Amino acid sequence: MIEEPTMSVKWIADRMHQIDASGIRKVFDLAANMTDPINLSIGQPHFDTPEPIKAALKQAVDGGYNAYSQTQGIKPLLETLQSHVDQTYQHDDRKVFVTSGTSGGLMLALCTLVGPGDEVIIFDPYFVMYKHLTRLAGGTPILVDTYPDFRINIDKVRDAMTDRTKVILFNSPSNPTGHVASAEEVQQLAELAAERDVALISDEIYRSFCYDGGFASPTAWNNQTIVIDGFSKSHSMTGWRCGWCHGPAHVIQQMIKLQQFTFVCAPHPVQWAALEAWKYDISSFVSEYKQKRDFMVNALKNDYEIHGGEGAFYLFLKVPQGSGTEFVKRAIENNLLIIPGNVFSEQDTHFRISYAAEERTLQRGVEVLKRLAQ
Amino acid sequence: MIEEPTMSVKWIADRMHQIDASGIRKVFDLAANMTDPINLSIGQPHFDTPEPIKAALKQAVDGGYNAYSQTQGIKPLLETLQSHVDQTYQHDDRKVFVTSGTSGGLMLALCTLVGPGDEVIIFDPYFVMYKHLTRLAGGTPILVDTYPDFRINIDKVRDAMTDRTKVILFNSPSNPTGHVASAEEVQQLAELAAERDVALISDEIYRSFCYDGGFASPTAWNNQTIVIDGFSKSHSMTGWRCGWCHGPAHVIQQMIKLQQFTFVCAPHPVQWAALEAWKYDISSFVSEYKQKRDFMVNALKNDYEIHGGEGAFYLFLKVPQGSGTEFVKRAIENNLLIIPGNVFSEQDTHFRISYAAEERTLQRGVEVLKRLAQ
Repeated sequence: MIEEPTMSVKWIADRMHQIDASGIRKVFDLAANMTDPINLSIGQPHFDTPEPIKAALKQAVDGGYNAYSQTQGIKPLLETLQSHVDQTYQHDDRKVFVTSGTSGGLMLALCTLVGPGDEVIIFDPYFVMYKHLTRLAGGTPILVDTYPDFRINIDKVRDAMTDRTKVILFNSPSNPTGHVASAEEVQQLAELAAERDVALISDEIYRSFCYDGGFASPTAWNNQTIVIDGFSKSHSMTGWRCGWCHGPAHVIQQMIKLQQFTFVCAPHPVQWAALEAWKYDISSFVSEYKQKRDFMVNALKNDYEIHGGEGAFYLFLKVPQGSGTEFVKRAIENNLLIIPGNVFSEQDTHFRISYAAEERTLQRGVEVLKRLAQ
Repeated sequence: MIEEPTMSVKWIADRMHQIDASGIRKVFDLAANMTDPINLSIGQPHFDTPEPIKAALKQAVDGGYNAYSQTQGIKPLLETLQSHVDQTYQHDDRKVFVTSGTSGGLMLALCTLVGPGDEVIIFDPYFVMYKHLTRLAGGTPILVDTYPDFRINIDKVRDAMTDRTKVILFNSPSNPTGHVASAEEVQQLAELAAERDVALISDEIYRSFCYDGGFASPTAWNNQTIVIDGFSKSHSMTGWRCGWCHGPAHVIQQMIKLQQFTFVCAPHPVQWAALEAWKYDISSFVSEYKQKRDFMVNALKNDYEIHGGEGAFYLFLKVPQGSGTEFVKRAIENNLLIIPGNVFSEQDTHFRISYAAEERTLQRGVEVLKRLAQ
């Protein structure tokens, strides 16, 4: 006998049926029975928020900064960020505002720009949220393949563009590949977007973590770029939900309008802590992650095909044989927790390692990975 | 000569042009030149977050609860809320989760349930966000008039329903009217929603502030009600962005899926503070606001037509003559800051007072309001 659905089941809007966000949950279900796994799956720094930033948050709470802030953020933080952006890009029309994390900024940007039928170009492998946020806005994700080396082939982008292309969503350093796009790649993309009058969203949350050369933002070549930035990864504040965004004033104004009745404001005392974070020197974290990257690449390069990995804290490696899912299943049987590539991609040929972990954990992970490569 | 729009102007999605969120900003623009106004415009408690709750937040920060939490919220808070909901409603299928404020819960509920072409029934006067969030989800707000006494006329609701009605969005105690719906009003609405198999969202953020009798939730008569609740107003945590929600498991599951890639999680250390807030006795705040309500009603009842005002901390009063906007302009000329009714309504005949203010401020406000009534 088939059970009647409760009445609420049919209430769900169509958009929700187009969003399958279960990929990563399936992995964690697989991992549920692991005790003390070698965990190379975590998408955030392995250190706690630095003390001076925590102190600033506590001080703001004591100081009574607990009610709503202005929608766009507290004035001193806005001024600090605006002055940085003005100095860096010298665009008259570029405005900043404070968001509820990078995902908050991404959601506002996509819902501001994308409507039903619009197409959003996303590079595969992609950060998991991009497809879902595009669907939320009513848009269609158009995937541009970057395998095997994760570099952007500008001809492929051009071929993927149609009359309905509204946004190109770009991410460097990339999650999951760690690829840092070269100045040449970025310039080509920035110029193509300008030439075709398409909005370019640049997710720069891993901007501080570039190990083999400078970071390039498309904003240098395209003054209409909408940049999503934040403090979560650089200052280990992922649970505090504070990020920031800059772009053409008109777009930013619309995003702030949308923030007014969704996020309302970034958590108010956290915004004061972000002001302290801005002053905090994170170079020791960056050099620590560079060392970890070097260790992992050296340890694994004879066993795995390695591309990308110039930034962020991820490696996206090709499995020696079989599918990514099968490989991850075997890894979990060997007490190693990693993420299969199909969580971030239309293909299931790779797996993601995060090296944001203690040295001993990395060593143990390498041992298992070398064994599995046989 | 007409200036060319910058290219970004035409990028804006259609939904953004249907959202005019400037009403309240216009008021604040009018007020920009006021120095030390008598401020009866504030939509949040006039006291700071209680010390034990601030202490709990600081302790969570020190304890390292600074990274992402689970999407649905931290376990001890979920267990506390779930146990409360289970005891109160005894529905097998009712599940809770933690949201980023009440507006976070509202956004998730509407985007989960409403798609392009769907209609959402909203009672006029309404909380400003309801129309905008409905538009964000692609839906059409259908307004049901509740003037002059702000009570729900169930026949009017029935008449407003069509095949496209997807949601009834209900709010008691109400912002802006302060009306607390009677058990009879609520039961009729709950039963109508069930009879027509339409989702009923109950915004219960002011639940704790009922001065003339008990609070009634439609959940008592309709086990599929989706309830939006929070800590912001009851515990003066508006800037901390933490709320909660309960409803049928299937709907809640979809809302959590959407939270995963928008809000990610409510601010993690704040969730630990919310656990402390749950234990905190707010009855002294409630009786203080009851006294303030009594003072204002007694002081103004001979000069203004008063309806509603049984809860929250608002009065929504009819202007003696002319429009609400003209009246507020005159109030501002007299150094009194209040909000015109057309910010919350299709009609411009009323104004909103918040009595979440110091006694002296209320006294000064009353003086001006009595003078303006002449």
